[in-house]
Amino acid sequence: MRLKELGEFGLIDRIAGRVTRKAGVRIGIGDDAAALEPSPGQVTLASADMLVEGVHFDLALCDPVTLGRKSLAVNLSDIAAMGGIPRYALLSLAVPQDLSVEFLDGFTTGFLEVAAEFDVTLVGGDTCASPGGLVVSVTVMGEQFAERVVTRSSARPGDLIFVTGTLGDSALGLKQLREGKRAGAAVRRHLDPLPRVREGMVLAEAGLPTAMIDVSDGLLADLGHILDLSKVGARLELDRLPLSPAFAACMPELGDDPFLLPLAGGEDYELLFTAPPGRADAVREALAPLGTRLSVIGEITTSGLRVVGADGSDYPVAVRGYSHFSTVN
Amino acid sequence: MRLKELGEFGLIDRIAGRVTRKAGVRIGIGDDAAALEPSPGQVTLASADMLVEGVHFDLALCDPVTLGRKSLAVNLSDIAAMGGIPRYALLSLAVPQDLSVEFLDGFTTGFLEVAAEFDVTLVGGDTCASPGGLVVSVTVMGEQFAERVVTRSSARPGDLIFVTGTLGDSALGLKQLREGKRAGAAVRRHLDPLPRVREGMVLAEAGLPTAMIDVSDGLLADLGHILDLSKVGARLELDRLPLSPAFAACMPELGDDPFLLPLAGGEDYELLFTAPPGRADAVREALAPLGTRLSVIGEITTSGLRVVGADGSDYPVAVRGYSHFSTVN
Repeated sequence: MRLKELGEFGLIDRIAGRVTRKAGVRIGIGDDAAALEPSPGQVTLASADMLVEGVHFDLALCDPVTLGRKSLAVNLSDIAAMGGIPRYALLSLAVPQDLSVEFLDGFTTGFLEVAAEFDVTLVGGDTCASPGGLVVSVTVMGEQFAERVVTRSSARPGDLIFVTGTLGDSALGLKQLREGKRAGAAVRRHLDPLPRVREGMVLAEAGLPTAMIDVSDGLLADLGHILDLSKVGARLELDRLPLSPAFAACMPELGDDPFLLPLAGGEDYELLFTAPPGRADAVREALAPLGTRLSVIGEITTSGLRVVGADGSDYPVAVRGYSHFSTVN
Repeated sequence: MRLKELGEFGLIDRIAGRVTRKAGVRIGIGDDAAALEPSPGQVTLASADMLVEGVHFDLALCDPVTLGRKSLAVNLSDIAAMGGIPRYALLSLAVPQDLSVEFLDGFTTGFLEVAAEFDVTLVGGDTCASPGGLVVSVTVMGEQFAERVVTRSSARPGDLIFVTGTLGDSALGLKQLREGKRAGAAVRRHLDPLPRVREGMVLAEAGLPTAMIDVSDGLLADLGHILDLSKVGARLELDRLPLSPAFAACMPELGDDPFLLPLAGGEDYELLFTAPPGRADAVREALAPLGTRLSVIGEITTSGLRVVGADGSDYPVAVRGYSHFSTVN
C-alpha cells in the first residue's frame, strides 16, 4: 500500500492499534498529549535522539524491522546510562512520500519489539511528510529515585574505569557493511545494538557507579565527557580493552591502527562507568546474574587523558570520536 | 561562524549556556538524560511535534528568531489543549552543513523567548547533521492534576462549541507569503502563532470544558477528531466563525469559497472546546481577565457534521483540513 492512500491519520491509527498500554498510562496515543502517572518519590528522566537517513542509517544497508529496533534501543541506552527505568516513548517520523506502508509496518514491528523487551509504552509522537530522507526522532522517558540517578560528573581520582561488553564491533560492522558484507556478528551489532538497561538499573540500585555514560560517540569521546564534567583525568590501558573474538579475528586487516575502532568508533552502546577500587567486587557481583561481560580498562587520575600500551608507552590519541558537523573525525 | 568550526558539542554548549533553569530541574542539558521532579499529585503530559523545512516552513519566508518561537509555540499549544501547565522542552535539530551559527543563534533566541514567556525550561535534546533540509523536533512535557486534564473524547450532545481568537488568519498569512507579501497581521499570525496556554489552564482549572483540542490541522479536521473520539456529531454556524478585521478585509479576494481558510486552513493554534450551555457564562467569566476573544460557533449533536449558513441552508463541506501524505486536501 502507498502511504498517500493510508494518509497521516491512517498511519497513526495503524501504529496506535499495535501498542500494548502499560500501567501508568492514563492517556496514550490519540489526544493532544499523553498523560502519564509518575511513580511516587521518583524523578522523571527524559532524553531525545534523532536518526537521519544518510547520516545515521542507509536504507540500502538495513531492513525496516532492525531500524525500528535500533531507533528505540539507542534512546534506551541514554536512560540506562543514568541508571533509570525506561517507561514511555514518543516517536516522530518525517517520511518520504515514496516510502511504503510495509516499510513503516516493519519499522513499527521492530520499535515495538524493543519496547516490549524493556517494558516501554509508546504514548505519542508525530508523523509528517519529508521532502528529503526519513528522519526518526524519539524521546524516551524513564524514572528512578533521585539518589540512585548516576550522572557524568562525579568520577573521582583513584576510581576504576569499567566497561560492559566489548568495544569496536559496531564500527567494524559499519565498515563491513560499507564493504558489501551483509551478515556476521559485527554487522548485527551495528544494526541491532542491545541497550544495557538492566545493567544500568542494577548498578544504580546498588549505588555503585560514581559516574556513568553510554558509549555512543566512541570510548575516548564519551570518557572525555565524564572527565570534563568530573574535572578529572584518566589512564586507559590499551591491552585491557574488551574485544570480541569477531573483532580480534579482523584486527590484522585493520591496518596501522587496529585500536582506532574500539577507542573512537562509536555506537557500542555499552556502559562506561567509574567506581572506587573497594567496590570492584560488588560491581562484579551485581552484574554476574545478568551474565554481562565486564572489564576494568583503566583508572581515573587528577588530570589529562593517557592511553598506555602493554609496555607502558603512551599510545598517540589523535582521533577522539564522532562529532557531527566536524571536518576532522 | 560556520557550524563545522563550532562542532556538535560546541553547538550544544552554546545553546546550554543560554538556558535559565527553573525549579524542578535536577539535571538539565549535558548528561545522558534530564532528571525532573514531578509535582506531587499531578500527571505528566507529553507531546511531540516535528517541523520539516519544505513542509512546515520555508527558510526564504521566515527569519530564524520567529522560526525558533514557532517551533516551541506549536508544541505548547498541544499542552494547552489538555489544560496542562507546560514545564520542560527537549529540542532536537538535524542541521544542514551550510546553515550558519548565526542562524542557529537566532533560532535559539526565539525558542528561549517563548520558553521564558511560558515558564518552560529547555532540558535536553539532540543535534546532528542533515543531508537534506533543517528538521526541528520538539517534545514538551507539562503537568496537571489528573481530574483537570481535558481530553478530546468527552463532548456530549447539547454542548456548545467554543473557539478562542479568530480563524483563518494563519492560512491567509501563508497565502500572502507565497504571493510575496512579507508583513501584515495575517503574515505575523502564520509565522509567530500565540499558544493559548493560559486560556487552557484557566479553563481546565475551572473544570469547564467537556472536550478540548487545538486548531492545528483546520477547524473541521480538529472538530472531527473530537466528534470521532466522543462519538457525537456537530452543527456549525458559518456566520458565527470568528474572523479578524484583517481577514474580513481580504474576503473579497478569496474567490468562490472565502470560508475555506477559517474552516480548513489550519495552524490557527486556537483552542476549540465544548461545554454545556449552562456553563457558558462561567466560560466567559473565566477567560475575561485574559482579554481573549471567545465565540460560540455551534453545538454538539448526536451524529454527523453539518455546517449551516445564515439562512439555515447546508454549506458543502468538501475540504476537511490538512493531512500529511494525502493527495486530496
